Amino acid sequence: MNDENLWCLKENGYQAGLHKHYEGLFTQGNGYMHVRGSFEEGCSDAPQDEEYLRFPDNVTLEKPRHPKSKQGTFIPGIVGQHPLLKEEIINLPYVLGLEFRLAGETLDMDRCRISGYRRWLDLRDGSLQRSFIWETAEGMQLQCTYSRYISMADTHLCIQRVQVAVLAGEGRLEVKTTLRADVRTNGMNHFARIVPSAETVGSLSLETLTEEGNQIFMLSALEVSEVMNWQADNTRTTAALRGECSLQTGDRLTVSKLTAVTTDRDMEEGTVRSRACTQLSRARDLGWEQLYNRHADSWKSKWQEADIRIKGDDMAQLSVRASLYHLIRSNREQDARVAICAKGYAGEAYFGRYFWDTEINLLPFFLHTNPQAARNLLLFRYNTLDGARRNARNYGYRGARYAWESSLSGEEQCANWQYADHEIHITADIVYALCHYVRATGDNEFLERYGIDILVETARYWCDRVDWNREGVGELLGVMGPDEYLPFTRNNAFTNRMVKFSLEQTVACMDNLEGGNPDGYAAAAERLDIRPGERELFRHTAEKLRLPYDSQTEIVPQSDDFASYADVDFASLWTDRSRPFGHFISQERNYRSKALKQADVLELMLLFPQEFTREQLKAAYAYYEPITTHDSSLSAAVHGIVASWLNQKEAAADFLQRVMAIDLSLEKKGAAEGIHIANCGGLWQLIVYGFAGLTSAMWSETLQLQPRLPEGWEELSFRIAWRGERYRITVNPGAYEVHKLKGGNAIAGTAI
Amino acid sequence: MNDENLWCLKENGYQAGLHKHYEGLFTQGNGYMHVRGSFEEGCSDAPQDEEYLRFPDNVTLEKPRHPKSKQGTFIPGIVGQHPLLKEEIINLPYVLGLEFRLAGETLDMDRCRISGYRRWLDLRDGSLQRSFIWETAEGMQLQCTYSRYISMADTHLCIQRVQVAVLAGEGRLEVKTTLRADVRTNGMNHFARIVPSAETVGSLSLETLTEEGNQIFMLSALEVSEVMNWQADNTRTTAALRGECSLQTGDRLTVSKLTAVTTDRDMEEGTVRSRACTQLSRARDLGWEQLYNRHADSWKSKWQEADIRIKGDDMAQLSVRASLYHLIRSNREQDARVAICAKGYAGEAYFGRYFWDTEINLLPFFLHTNPQAARNLLLFRYNTLDGARRNARNYGYRGARYAWESSLSGEEQCANWQYADHEIHITADIVYALCHYVRATGDNEFLERYGIDILVETARYWCDRVDWNREGVGELLGVMGPDEYLPFTRNNAFTNRMVKFSLEQTVACMDNLEGGNPDGYAAAAERLDIRPGERELFRHTAEKLRLPYDSQTEIVPQSDDFASYADVDFASLWTDRSRPFGHFISQERNYRSKALKQADVLELMLLFPQEFTREQLKAAYAYYEPITTHDSSLSAAVHGIVASWLNQKEAAADFLQRVMAIDLSLEKKGAAEGIHIANCGGLWQLIVYGFAGLTSAMWSETLQLQPRLPEGWEELSFRIAWRGERYRITVNPGAYEVHKLKGGNAIAGTAI
Repeated sequence: MNDENLWCLKENGYQAGLHKHYEGLFTQGNGYMHVRGSFEEGCSDAPQDEEYLRFPDNVTLEKPRHPKSKQGTFIPGIVGQHPLLKEEIINLPYVLGLEFRLAGETLDMDRCRISGYRRWLDLRDGSLQRSFIWETAEGMQLQCTYSRYISMADTHLCIQRVQVAVLAGEGRLEVKTTLRADVRTNGMNHFARIVPSAETVGSLSLETLTEEGNQIFMLSALEVSEVMNWQADNTRTTAALRGECSLQTGDRLTVSKLTAVTTDRDMEEGTVRSRACTQLSRARDLGWEQLYNRHADSWKSKWQEADIRIKGDDMAQLSVRASLYHLIRSNREQDARVAICAKGYAGEAYFGRYFWDTEINLLPFFLHTNPQAARNLLLFRYNTLDGARRNARNYGYRGARYAWESSLSGEEQCANWQYADHEIHITADIVYALCHYVRATGDNEFLERYGIDILVETARYWCDRVDWNREGVGELLGVMGPDEYLPFTRNNAFTNRMVKFSLEQTVACMDNLEGGNPDGYAAAAERLDIRPGERELFRHTAEKLRLPYDSQTEIVPQSDDFASYADVDFASLWTDRSRPFGHFISQERNYRSKALKQADVLELMLLFPQEFTREQLKAAYAYYEPITTHDSSLSAAVHGIVASWLNQKEAAADFLQRVMAIDLSLEKKGAAEGIHIANCGGLWQLIVYGFAGLTSAMWSETLQLQPRLPEGWEELSFRIAWRGERYRITVNPGAYEVHKLKGGNAIAGTAI
Repeated sequence: MNDENLWCLKENGYQAGLHKHYEGLFTQGNGYMHVRGSFEEGCSDAPQDEEYLRFPDNVTLEKPRHPKSKQGTFIPGIVGQHPLLKEEIINLPYVLGLEFRLAGETLDMDRCRISGYRRWLDLRDGSLQRSFIWETAEGMQLQCTYSRYISMADTHLCIQRVQVAVLAGEGRLEVKTTLRADVRTNGMNHFARIVPSAETVGSLSLETLTEEGNQIFMLSALEVSEVMNWQADNTRTTAALRGECSLQTGDRLTVSKLTAVTTDRDMEEGTVRSRACTQLSRARDLGWEQLYNRHADSWKSKWQEADIRIKGDDMAQLSVRASLYHLIRSNREQDARVAICAKGYAGEAYFGRYFWDTEINLLPFFLHTNPQAARNLLLFRYNTLDGARRNARNYGYRGARYAWESSLSGEEQCANWQYADHEIHITADIVYALCHYVRATGDNEFLERYGIDILVETARYWCDRVDWNREGVGELLGVMGPDEYLPFTRNNAFTNRMVKFSLEQTVACMDNLEGGNPDGYAAAAERLDIRPGERELFRHTAEKLRLPYDSQTEIVPQSDDFASYADVDFASLWTDRSRPFGHFISQERNYRSKALKQADVLELMLLFPQEFTREQLKAAYAYYEPITTHDSSLSAAVHGIVASWLNQKEAAADFLQRVMAIDLSLEKKGAAEGIHIANCGGLWQLIVYGFAGLTSAMWSETLQLQPRLPEGWEELSFRIAWRGERYRITVNPGAYEVHKLKGGNAIAGTAI
């Protein structure tokens, strides 16, 4: 198999029914901006400006709109308000517009006679290519080749090039390039003002003001290999230039479009317009080749740290790279005003919000490949601490309560109250991630400067949130754990353990800081208004908080009341396993049944592996796996890791397949609404924690491995950043090697 | 105290802040149509056509719109669709419009100089009177006197009359009469077409087509004592006639407006227009006096059956009559396509839907004062059985599941899933009411013809809804009982007992019918496709369904998991008892706390009094009363009855005050959003079941009383229909008398 097959996601032949899936899968971006993999010319029967009122619903089970195509242009941080769904990332004007028309026939993948259609996303440099032959009704044949990328080095730039080679016939080709603001986000118009402009020298601009007051400026410069006689063809919402040229057999037309995108939220100085102009002129000075080289070099250096190499399983190789690609793309370095949204900025379905996925599913990847990015993700939570304080106050509590679905400011955005109100573990998940970061990097300064505020404020919330029963035991009632199919449980094992950990870490941090840096502690105590007795309250609550466990069966019950839920006869209910179980049962029934949406106790055991014996892990897996529906994309990877730890190789391999299918499956059109970015992080964890058997940096100072490669894998290798050092790890069946980079020593061991 | 004080609800002096309350309290109607007690001229600063999107919310805690005035014109059965809130009764065009203008000054209660303002609703005939003196800026003084009623005899007619007497000054008075369709329902426009028309002979009409396709036709005829030279002054949405006349000191102008309202849902033949014309011409033939006499006679005969007389407590006397007035007004006789909505058709806040209140709170009053009306209410449930079947199917169950908030067709309309999904007792409540009706009336034919379908179909649903635990005990999990502050409980004592009763009654009905009327049973079995073994399943489920009880404490727990909820420190949380507790606690916390919204176990004991000892009742009252917030208007009456049964006279009197305050309190503006019609029924029950101590017809074949009059009550008397007979009951302190009407014998006893 050649290298391309291990690096390129391919679409061979166009199928309208799969288009939306590929739009998501082929999303390009650089952290600053993201554009779904739509066609430059769009789809003529899929308008992007349909207005409707999307209602709050269960996003897992909701039937999405836009069956065929939904374009997407997202800049993290540019958001608007939806009357029902609250804050949502705005789907911005479409930058890619480039349309062809020949003798009255508009190029359209569905309506025209197209042959030899191929499209592929090259994961190495994130470039998207498309080629096909267009045979017009009048018999003219054109070979069309598209290429585009969003620069990883010059993050405001979007670069496109199209080549049209005439294979047969002659005619006048009309070219129309656009910047289009006829775009709605979940049916809403967020644009208050649109100013399109087109200069016949070959330049387009679109200035957009959102209802929230943000400015977005798009400036395109066109280069064509033929004289086009550009004519402005603007509408109220679209900047457009239209031109045409005569072509005949053997002719070759190249159209290049270079677009700079700026907003008033950018951290650079100057107006949006002046910065876009500067970007564009600098790009033109650099020239196309150097522009590309800077971009490709940037990707290369990212891949050097992040890549995972698998020999012996090409599908897994390509799949893991697809996941890593989207993880790398989604991360915005150096800007902790935003984090990574649940759909990896590849769709509007989840509103561009931040969930617990960030801390639990994504963070480990960044911790060990790009610690600076991990730091930024935690800094985002520090930056939104005031929002979390407001959330706590809104619920009547002291301290800080992180939002189940966080806005930019940290305030709760989830429109479904059962999640917003009851899925409280997010607040402890953030503390877990904070501690994980500190332990994996040794960045104690972060803990002392920022972390302690998060620790103390969330500890205050927990002390208010705990109920004390008549035996003096602390309880968390009315809790939805990670398993979202049981929303109102008593003492969810996962949540209670995480909260206990969170309180313990708060006390330890206060103890350590006071002992090691009394001035630092005094400053924190003043800043946070720490009262006498607070630390004792945290300690007491941590000590007395109940941890559900059934010593008789050795099962950790998902919650204290878990046994009282109804058994489910899956065989009779779930008649089509290709669809989520949730489609076959009413929410009412689901909420009282032992049918788990996703891993819950297993997730607990993954995060606290040292606290459970192999027997307990085995018992939990045997008990919970058969009643888990995996309706959540967060479930399969966790199960895969546990199966791997239990050396259940067949099950682990099966979960690996499920994990890979979540975004890649054509049958499920997995990426249609965006990328399941948590699952991308989950795949990294399945390979690193599961197959390579890395002990979490939370629980081990030294890098420890216990590899269990899937059948057929000949070699697995990747890099790991570990407490300030970098290592290359190579695992082969029966053996592994850890090579410290930059003068490090190789250590070796034997896999089980 | 004179008779008027015992029969008239009065407003002395106008206060803008109380206007909306009086609009609700002074609602007039006749079952066919209902009009809120708004001013004929409206309020100039309270437009009725504000458009907005009302969101699903907790109606108890929601902050209502329209602080000052919301007109309301409702015809049960004329409904529209709201995009978020589903089916809602449409607020129809305003029929009452009558405006005055004098020398550029428009009459407005807020903006003009008004003195001697009085308004009163005469409960005897449901007529609303208003009088005041209007002193214009130019110094003219006019004594204005308004009177109006909606005919109880000729139900399509609305009759208005205004007299203007000039006390001082002279000028030209402009009179404008209107039919206005610039009306929105909860912010929505439901009118697809509006055709206003005005004839200068003094006639107005407004034809309205709703988006659902219903036609509403309003036709007004005007009579004036002066020549007015009417001019049409229509707008797109309003039919209007404008005229004027000169007036001077001593002059007296009378304007009469007689309006016929018809719809395409009426059961009479002919077009809406032809029927309105017929109604109107017949009314004019009858003349104003005879028209009024027919109306007044109709009210008189209703009062004869329904009135409760209290000597020694004038406030209670007036208050109970206000409740009885709204109960009588809300009931539409002879039309079982509709029932009585939760706000007694006196406001749009609850969308005109049907809740469990009908069966549990209203039915007893109708059973014993107007059995035909009770029958109609049950027939409505029979008529909507298909909707209930669809509800069951939507949730994945067999049989029929009545809607928590029923549409006209019986389908679920509740936009808040926790109620719709989990407050399932409604389905059993309907069966309880059905049995109550049959026992109180002896109408077995109803049971055999209609009731059995309800019984069998709901029994099927229950058998699917029950979960079986590993000990073979039937359980109802994930249940919200009457107490809506604990939505997801295990085995709610009220619900489980009601379901068990429902299943038992189904089996008994099948047994009896098969034994007594084999042909009837065979027909039902075929119609309902009763399978072999089904009856055994019903019987088995009834037998094995768990009934929570704690034999140690003798407390009936509200649910099996009740003890596991958190105790609430009410003193620290509920700092202002004049506002609902729900305003002081987040829903999240409320849902895990022992803070009851309303009676739950006490309601159970009220419905099954023979199953609980006095000690158990006492223990339940002592346990639950202190933790019940009475945030629901359904709670106080139940508590009052139980307090009365326990001879806790002070508490009973206190609950009587609360019950009376619910609609009448000026402080709480109780009636602003409509009448708490369930509480009206509750007041009847408090007096009849509580103070008179009537044993429910469900549990006694003979009429039994155990009176316990409140302090100061010298005499309580009322009529009771009982198994086909009618009785007059008179209770005095220490004695009571039951007098059988129409040749019945008096029986006497001694009160405790």
